[in-house]
Amino acid sequence: MTQQYTIADYLFERIHEAGATDIFGVPGDFNLPFLDNIIAAKDLRWVGNTNELNAGYAADGYARERGFAAMVTTFGVGELSAINATAGSFAEYAPVLHVVGAPSMAQQNAKRRIHHTLGDGVFNHFIKMVEPVTVARAQITPENAASEIDRVIRMVLKKHRPGYLMLSPDVARQPIYPPTTKLIDSEEDITSQAALKDFRQALIAFLPNKTTTLMADLMVHRLGLQNELKALIADTNIPYTTLSWGKTLLDEHSERWAGTYAGVASRPVVKDAVENCECLIKIGVNYTDTTTAGFSQDIDDDVVVDLHYERASVSGKTFAPIALKDALQTLHEVMTSGITITPKPFCEPMQTHQQQGADDEAIRQDDLWHIVADQLADNNLVFADQGTAYFGISDVRLPEGVTCYGQPMWGSIGYTLPASLGAAIASPHKRSVVLIGDGSALLTIQEMATIINQRINPVIVLVNNDGYTVERAIHGENQPYNDIPACQWSLMPQAFGGTDDTVLVLKASTAGELKSAFEQAAKATDKLVMLEVMTDKYDIPPLLADITEALKPKSDS
Amino acid sequence: MTQQYTIADYLFERIHEAGATDIFGVPGDFNLPFLDNIIAAKDLRWVGNTNELNAGYAADGYARERGFAAMVTTFGVGELSAINATAGSFAEYAPVLHVVGAPSMAQQNAKRRIHHTLGDGVFNHFIKMVEPVTVARAQITPENAASEIDRVIRMVLKKHRPGYLMLSPDVARQPIYPPTTKLIDSEEDITSQAALKDFRQALIAFLPNKTTTLMADLMVHRLGLQNELKALIADTNIPYTTLSWGKTLLDEHSERWAGTYAGVASRPVVKDAVENCECLIKIGVNYTDTTTAGFSQDIDDDVVVDLHYERASVSGKTFAPIALKDALQTLHEVMTSGITITPKPFCEPMQTHQQQGADDEAIRQDDLWHIVADQLADNNLVFADQGTAYFGISDVRLPEGVTCYGQPMWGSIGYTLPASLGAAIASPHKRSVVLIGDGSALLTIQEMATIINQRINPVIVLVNNDGYTVERAIHGENQPYNDIPACQWSLMPQAFGGTDDTVLVLKASTAGELKSAFEQAAKATDKLVMLEVMTDKYDIPPLLADITEALKPKSDS
Repeated sequence: MTQQYTIADYLFERIHEAGATDIFGVPGDFNLPFLDNIIAAKDLRWVGNTNELNAGYAADGYARERGFAAMVTTFGVGELSAINATAGSFAEYAPVLHVVGAPSMAQQNAKRRIHHTLGDGVFNHFIKMVEPVTVARAQITPENAASEIDRVIRMVLKKHRPGYLMLSPDVARQPIYPPTTKLIDSEEDITSQAALKDFRQALIAFLPNKTTTLMADLMVHRLGLQNELKALIADTNIPYTTLSWGKTLLDEHSERWAGTYAGVASRPVVKDAVENCECLIKIGVNYTDTTTAGFSQDIDDDVVVDLHYERASVSGKTFAPIALKDALQTLHEVMTSGITITPKPFCEPMQTHQQQGADDEAIRQDDLWHIVADQLADNNLVFADQGTAYFGISDVRLPEGVTCYGQPMWGSIGYTLPASLGAAIASPHKRSVVLIGDGSALLTIQEMATIINQRINPVIVLVNNDGYTVERAIHGENQPYNDIPACQWSLMPQAFGGTDDTVLVLKASTAGELKSAFEQAAKATDKLVMLEVMTDKYDIPPLLADITEALKPKSDS
Repeated sequence: MTQQYTIADYLFERIHEAGATDIFGVPGDFNLPFLDNIIAAKDLRWVGNTNELNAGYAADGYARERGFAAMVTTFGVGELSAINATAGSFAEYAPVLHVVGAPSMAQQNAKRRIHHTLGDGVFNHFIKMVEPVTVARAQITPENAASEIDRVIRMVLKKHRPGYLMLSPDVARQPIYPPTTKLIDSEEDITSQAALKDFRQALIAFLPNKTTTLMADLMVHRLGLQNELKALIADTNIPYTTLSWGKTLLDEHSERWAGTYAGVASRPVVKDAVENCECLIKIGVNYTDTTTAGFSQDIDDDVVVDLHYERASVSGKTFAPIALKDALQTLHEVMTSGITITPKPFCEPMQTHQQQGADDEAIRQDDLWHIVADQLADNNLVFADQGTAYFGISDVRLPEGVTCYGQPMWGSIGYTLPASLGAAIASPHKRSVVLIGDGSALLTIQEMATIINQRINPVIVLVNNDGYTVERAIHGENQPYNDIPACQWSLMPQAFGGTDDTVLVLKASTAGELKSAFEQAAKATDKLVMLEVMTDKYDIPPLLADITEALKPKSDS
């Protein structure tokens, strides 16, 4: 029998065209029939996750590496389990398409009080619930399929944020003609040339003879402009920094790297470079409280050249619409046009970290992250969970080539383990390094089963500090709500299906043991490595100490 | 320092008054300060869960046993992770109050782009998202605290469905006077006496000299009318049934028990008793596709006496408003007033199950659930996950005193393990028996850590059938999306903190091994018992075979 080209085929063809070769999710009776279309597609692969939240996190990690991801869940139960991940993708600019298998149109039209519904015969509750956390939504029908699939995916790609499609199996199997046009015909040009010209003139007038620092952040990554940013850095000689959200955008081993800026929690060199320069060039910067120690940045708008998503400004004067890419190109041209650019000098020599504890002493957080950083290789994708891990790694120098991912805006603990799976599938030649505390790991630990089953080879640095240490630092240091059940982390890989062939379990309590464990991990390139690091339950990295002060409920301070 | 009575104290006093002595949840920086009020309250206990979805399920299980439950999560990340559980509580009538710790009013008023938000300075996205799955919502302020707390909790109790409160730490610590009135002053009487009188007359006219069967369902349980229903059964002599949603409402070892009704999937005796009687008395019945094999009930409205939530009807004529409790009392009075009630005779003798496989043969699903049923004791709370377990246990005779819980409407797999924790905490003298497949167990397995840490003693019957067997039966029997990673289930209890003192791990592949394992489990009353039962990956219970036919996508049939 000749297989007819169906709406499901159309959808998955467009998903592939948008950049996904793997689709995440969990099966359910309302999506099973069109999962067959994924299995049958020669250029798509189904990656089943252990639950829908984890599928959403995996898709988010994939989207950060690939620029697009897709996931499939089932109606109600499945999609709502994933909605926190979708909200995170929205807050953190990860372009994920969420396809939900819905009851048949016949059941919907008959207002059947079927399972996976609220029992009221209403089928649009959930598409409404997802509205604040998606940039486009549609219920696919035979009539609107091509236009709505294209519209929603295009919006996801354009806005770098999630979209949502509801697809019934009886609609999915309807015939349709394959697309005759490309999904993206040409890059949409939002830039006003007049605005760009004025921006150029403003730069030419403003930039010369001012001590200058550059500060980059996540939107450079999300818009895929890393190379353009690096070219600007290479062709100029100004010092630079990122916020923690933009960590690893730029070479952190250059003598021009000022460290990670974090408002009042910054080290003196970077604080001075950012706050005491005469010209601060901000590129793709979004402030949030966790990256600025509670919005404590002390920056005068008058000294700022700000290149943002779809606008640019010079010393308080805004030019719009200008796409970040165009603004960056213009900035590059002006800065290399022969005008005098004056690097802001460092206020003191950059300090290099001296290990505080001896190799045979219990590991301390103020050494831990430096040691981790030293052990990273240039193919590593670092996923730092929102806790001591994120703040610890934010403050240290990472090798060129490493990409560091976290969730400083959304801050959903447990995100990194499933996200690392997605990123590793997106970029199979890279190795994920997951930095996560025991409290966070427990939320999503079952995704380890998928990681092992898929033969992914992350190094999971599990910081075992006996509960929610970052919360102890904020409030309730010894309150029972900050405790978690004592688990045997070393057994988890085996429980979730690992064998000696597929997993390596290591443990470190001292700096020496940690270094030695990393050496073993580096050799076990075909295995999931779980490296449990024992730290004191009250010990936090220096940056976090400053930031938690800013995050404490006012009654505590 | 004298501790002042605060809004948080008021909230938790009302929660206690509503029936909760334990509060579930996960800490977060926006709720930490008022978790202190729980710790300090002498009559409340904090039960920390491993993630928010599990907390929501635990609260749902607690609410089913207690009639009310409360959970606390944090803004955005926490509440959205729990929203699938809340939707389930809505669909399945579990009265759960969800308290969300929100950013301070100062941060909200300043529209700060802080963490756990979408970064847009808007703080009411999530209270809007939860609207379809809650009966009342409020953001607590110093001005509205008493009235809104009372209103939302009263609605939860009245409608037996979830409510939502958003509480900022700076509001929580504001002083307030303790309540001076009771939360529930007197039971609200919705019944119209005129309607009730007419209903009585209609019953007197309709009931006599008709072959009669009684069919009860979940709303009897949710409204707490089990004893009233049992009294009616005791004082009459008609045969009775429940749908699977109302399983264990009535004594299933009585010779008047007709079996579980399930539309065309029913056994002949119960199908005849329900569909061929002259008077069918329905009490608290809600139909859904999974309990009726796709709404295949063949019941003529003309023969039905229907006692529902807030209305009653006789042979198509509706009387409203009448509370179910009042309708039931009136029905009882009329049926015992001397009129002639004629029991519908069984069409054939009830069959008792003969074990199909020998004790030393591989266990089969058509024996498995009968053996499980035989091993249950009258203090067991059975939680059957939506899969072979739910449909398997629905079709067998359970001992009097057992309460069976499932989710046939919402059908969220993985629900039962955390829900059993909640129910066990609500009813500490009962023992939970969790019936769950491997595919489902993986979704929420980490809650085992809380169960062990809390020293709960469930018997977890983990049916290891190598993936999503219920989905194989519906579609894609051998498709890879119905596979799951191979886990070592026997290691899970130890990985999640169990020791020889706290857990017992058993395995059964034959009927004989299963019986013997249950004997060991019955003795280990102070331990979590994990009993892994190996069954064939394609084997399903007889009832499920009939029901999946009805649930299959039309293209498959």
